[in-house]
Amino acid sequence: MSSQPPHPALLIPGPIEFDDAVLQAMSHYSESHVGMPFVNTFGETLSMLRKLFQTSDPKSQGFVISGSGTLGWDQVAANLVEPGDEVLVLHTGYFADSFADCFETYGIKPTQLKAPIGERPQQNEVEEALKARQYKLITITHTDTSTGVLSEIESIAQLVHRVSPDTLIVVDGVCSVGCEEIRFDDWGIDCVITASQKAIGCPAGLSIVMTSGRALDRFKARTKPPGSYFASWKNWLPIMQNYEARKPSYFATPSPQLVHALHTSLTQILSRPLEERFQKHKEASQKIKKAIADMGLKQLASKPENQANGMTAIYLPEGMSPPEILPTLMKKGVIFAGGLHKQIAAKYVRFGHMGVSVTDPKRDDIDRAIKALKEGLEEVGYKAPNGST
Amino acid sequence: MSSQPPHPALLIPGPIEFDDAVLQAMSHYSESHVGMPFVNTFGETLSMLRKLFQTSDPKSQGFVISGSGTLGWDQVAANLVEPGDEVLVLHTGYFADSFADCFETYGIKPTQLKAPIGERPQQNEVEEALKARQYKLITITHTDTSTGVLSEIESIAQLVHRVSPDTLIVVDGVCSVGCEEIRFDDWGIDCVITASQKAIGCPAGLSIVMTSGRALDRFKARTKPPGSYFASWKNWLPIMQNYEARKPSYFATPSPQLVHALHTSLTQILSRPLEERFQKHKEASQKIKKAIADMGLKQLASKPENQANGMTAIYLPEGMSPPEILPTLMKKGVIFAGGLHKQIAAKYVRFGHMGVSVTDPKRDDIDRAIKALKEGLEEVGYKAPNGST
Repeated sequence: MSSQPPHPALLIPGPIEFDDAVLQAMSHYSESHVGMPFVNTFGETLSMLRKLFQTSDPKSQGFVISGSGTLGWDQVAANLVEPGDEVLVLHTGYFADSFADCFETYGIKPTQLKAPIGERPQQNEVEEALKARQYKLITITHTDTSTGVLSEIESIAQLVHRVSPDTLIVVDGVCSVGCEEIRFDDWGIDCVITASQKAIGCPAGLSIVMTSGRALDRFKARTKPPGSYFASWKNWLPIMQNYEARKPSYFATPSPQLVHALHTSLTQILSRPLEERFQKHKEASQKIKKAIADMGLKQLASKPENQANGMTAIYLPEGMSPPEILPTLMKKGVIFAGGLHKQIAAKYVRFGHMGVSVTDPKRDDIDRAIKALKEGLEEVGYKAPNGST
Repeated sequence: MSSQPPHPALLIPGPIEFDDAVLQAMSHYSESHVGMPFVNTFGETLSMLRKLFQTSDPKSQGFVISGSGTLGWDQVAANLVEPGDEVLVLHTGYFADSFADCFETYGIKPTQLKAPIGERPQQNEVEEALKARQYKLITITHTDTSTGVLSEIESIAQLVHRVSPDTLIVVDGVCSVGCEEIRFDDWGIDCVITASQKAIGCPAGLSIVMTSGRALDRFKARTKPPGSYFASWKNWLPIMQNYEARKPSYFATPSPQLVHALHTSLTQILSRPLEERFQKHKEASQKIKKAIADMGLKQLASKPENQANGMTAIYLPEGMSPPEILPTLMKKGVIFAGGLHKQIAAKYVRFGHMGVSVTDPKRDDIDRAIKALKEGLEEVGYKAPNGST
């Protein structure tokens, strides 16, 4: 039995539904941020992050800082590049535009490589861009939360290593870490930024980052100090190293309760093979995508290979808008999100399928959501085309 | 009966002990950050902040952003001043040095006006400094958490208004908001930054700021964009205004659980007159300071008028260091903090007395702590001088 009161299933692309034990960890009694009980909890959390990101290189380093996923962009822009540097931003939706804005704030020059809505930049386009100019780093949004478009990290990383080996590879994994495979060492990634409230399954409030030794060397070789104070690795790197070495350390007060919740969710995630977790997300995603096709609906993401496994962005039937269907779903106990990509926001909804809603066999969130969507669409007057069920 | 398991009383200058209801709010089931239930909670929280800061000017605006108190410095440095601007930093301990570092990160030129340890800059010194140069803003650490020195905000504000009326008045209230009086409108303050985990009584993880209409006008008149992305009011101001107007809005995902906890703690604080709350903190502080004097010990803060009411920094007896006494106190169920001011860190400890430990009549944290300190000192070989009890 769940210890949570009855409530609608939150099936937006983050925050997601949380496990009881994770929520209970949020109520942990107050501890000193520099006392050994908490230092041990934080240290273990940082060690577990290495497993989540599949890095065993001792030169890698995780960061867990109070903030939202957005703070990860500031960490990249303020620490890994210097004013005047050129960076290449692969665009698959809203979040690349914002990441580019963030770079500009710090005096970095972003070039966006855009694809039509629902697509992702092609390998040959990326290759051409990388050959045209020397970029200090490239950013790839793994899953763009506004479109549900999935990028192919491994092949892009191979391309960068071949064509522009000095370019750091930065992955925005806010909507992918914990539900899509990321092999940090094997794929030669330099930095992944993410947040707590999506597939990691911990309430919002933590910016989570993994960096490679190469990225840290680049950081240490800066000619100017980092462009942010709160996001500065000059301030945070020794703190994270100390906590992971189980030594008390202070720059700014961490949130013991959120770190306890993250510790709990990571312990749960790592108690099973990661491949199994990714496979479960794939299976749930395929089930959802098939059901949506059966309803005669289309996704924003144009083809199976660019469709995320942790969320689905669904075009509504012609003439229907999110304010018509979302309240109907809510009445059926299911919360979806509206559109976020400015050009087409009024035409689609987003269904998040990450974490316990997918992995906990005691939950029927996904089946209920599919049923609610089908019934809800019919209630607001939609008839699936012939051949659809 | 408390619903928290038995644990040592956390009496450091933040995080503090939390009320059961606040901790329970941390476990709130997952909600959409743009759904009306949470939008209402966040909106009410922002409205309550106005009462906490004693501002009824509709042009004032509160900000609640995932982060630590430190993020408030970035908000000030990145939004209220521009590169090349001069600012005056009144120094009463460690935190002024760090605030000055933060200004330098954003290209601002801080001038620190320092006082000897345990003292605060004198009015005539501040007046002289303000007359010597045109400062865009002045910062005052209300209570410096490293020294327990209390600044006098009202009289400094009057001085600034008289001598340098265009200078914005910024208060670092991380260790004072909720336990020391701050009359935002009456005293003509432009910005107070604080954090959730001290006298506000909510777990760490939120940067909390109140700004005046004048400060926002100054922000809007900037010639260059803000120097930070995550701390940019260009990004956050419309979000906070929308939430407070009960409209969904998105820049970066807030932490619904922390906001629920803050909502709970603010509701508790505002259920009684604020003057009563400040008076209770004063009384507890005086009791502690008398007990410490009776033990023959001295405080860092040199005289009654510059001693904070939410914490006490206590010089240990000659030759004794924090690692000798802190574990003894821990055994007695009380956690104090070590020293933080670099020059003298090994010579003193810090006792935080804020929030429920002071205001909840069912708790005996303060009496237990005084007793533990007295007995603990004796156990490690300290004899109070003649005349002390």
